[in-house]
Amino acid sequence: MASKAVVLLSGGLDSYTAAAIARAQRHDLYALTVAYGQRHAAEVHAARAIAKALGVVEHREITLDLASFGGSALVGDGEVPKDRALDQSSIPVTYVPARNTVFLALALAWAEVLGARDIFIGVNALDYSGYPDCRPEFIRAFETLATLATRAGVEGERFTVHTPLIALSKADIIRAGLKLSLDYGLTRSCYDPHPDGSPCGRCDSCRLRAKGFEEVGVPDPLLEPQRPQRL
Amino acid sequence: MASKAVVLLSGGLDSYTAAAIARAQRHDLYALTVAYGQRHAAEVHAARAIAKALGVVEHREITLDLASFGGSALVGDGEVPKDRALDQSSIPVTYVPARNTVFLALALAWAEVLGARDIFIGVNALDYSGYPDCRPEFIRAFETLATLATRAGVEGERFTVHTPLIALSKADIIRAGLKLSLDYGLTRSCYDPHPDGSPCGRCDSCRLRAKGFEEVGVPDPLLEPQRPQRL
Repeated sequence: MASKAVVLLSGGLDSYTAAAIARAQRHDLYALTVAYGQRHAAEVHAARAIAKALGVVEHREITLDLASFGGSALVGDGEVPKDRALDQSSIPVTYVPARNTVFLALALAWAEVLGARDIFIGVNALDYSGYPDCRPEFIRAFETLATLATRAGVEGERFTVHTPLIALSKADIIRAGLKLSLDYGLTRSCYDPHPDGSPCGRCDSCRLRAKGFEEVGVPDPLLEPQRPQRL
Repeated sequence: MASKAVVLLSGGLDSYTAAAIARAQRHDLYALTVAYGQRHAAEVHAARAIAKALGVVEHREITLDLASFGGSALVGDGEVPKDRALDQSSIPVTYVPARNTVFLALALAWAEVLGARDIFIGVNALDYSGYPDCRPEFIRAFETLATLATRAGVEGERFTVHTPLIALSKADIIRAGLKLSLDYGLTRSCYDPHPDGSPCGRCDSCRLRAKGFEEVGVPDPLLEPQRPQRL
């Protein structure tokens, strides 16, 4: 019997790929999307289409108004930076305070109820080295916490937080996904899309994505002019 | 200048006392109440009255539907047990999976935005030894995680999770609160109140509370028949 895995699904390219890797490892997928007050709801719609394409057993959307705390350009505090150098080592203003801690805590809550011991998150320490909660040491600390935090842990079980993308470049991630026949036209990556939902092309996320597709040498299906709107 | 502290405020007796201890230590209080799908909303109303009585700088309520995950009698899955022995060592069915992990993650998110480095939570390892996420080792693991998870941590700051009640009996907690002139009539403790909001008197929480007041030798103001309804 396949074992259950909770996969955090944002609607972006990374979490789609991480979830597909979980599926390729014969896990039954339980997808969790946190609607946390993003600047644009398009990500949540994309997550629904992706969950369907992946054939998940169940897709839960949980609403959490992290925007009310403020503190990030991603939740409406200040401008999303455009055209900045991608190799900056400082933490970008798009960092959402403690976001992955909150996401993993919610995934852990659901995993414990489901009897799942595996959680997949599409964090990446290479392209986003500026985000503290994308580092391997953060993930290991969360696993330690998860064991201490739960009934399952007390009973001797262990939770594993899988980060299959953590050491990959964006191009590597796209290559892995294309091997798994993923349709990246379903995803949304832009931090600050135009009112019609089309990507700005200038934020960090758009530019990392473009760089990735360029390195792989394939066009981004999201940007194909003839592609019918699916969302 | 007083330093800021985020205090998790549930509407119960313990978190009120923990917050008052934070105030006595000259912190400016930022109270966070998570409305997580409790069986009864009375706790959230109580938290508002308590925040006012404590003179907090700000009180945030954040809604999070942990009930949708199920898995606990406290969020509507199954019956709240009544009249059971209080010295059982197994984890009660009122355990909410990963609840304190989620609560502390949210407190951390707000603390980072506020520039606060202190978080207070009214967990108690003595009377609730069955809850894994009330143990000191869980709290220490969360502090480690918090440092790794945040911009502040990367910049060399440390977060402290204060648990002033962790080793106290319910009677000790009540004594501490009475010394600080707290009005426990503002609090709600019952896991399964009657439709009129009055406590059932038979769940673990009601019975621990009654035992505490009895040991201190004072009446529970919540149970005084002449007390005017404040909520």
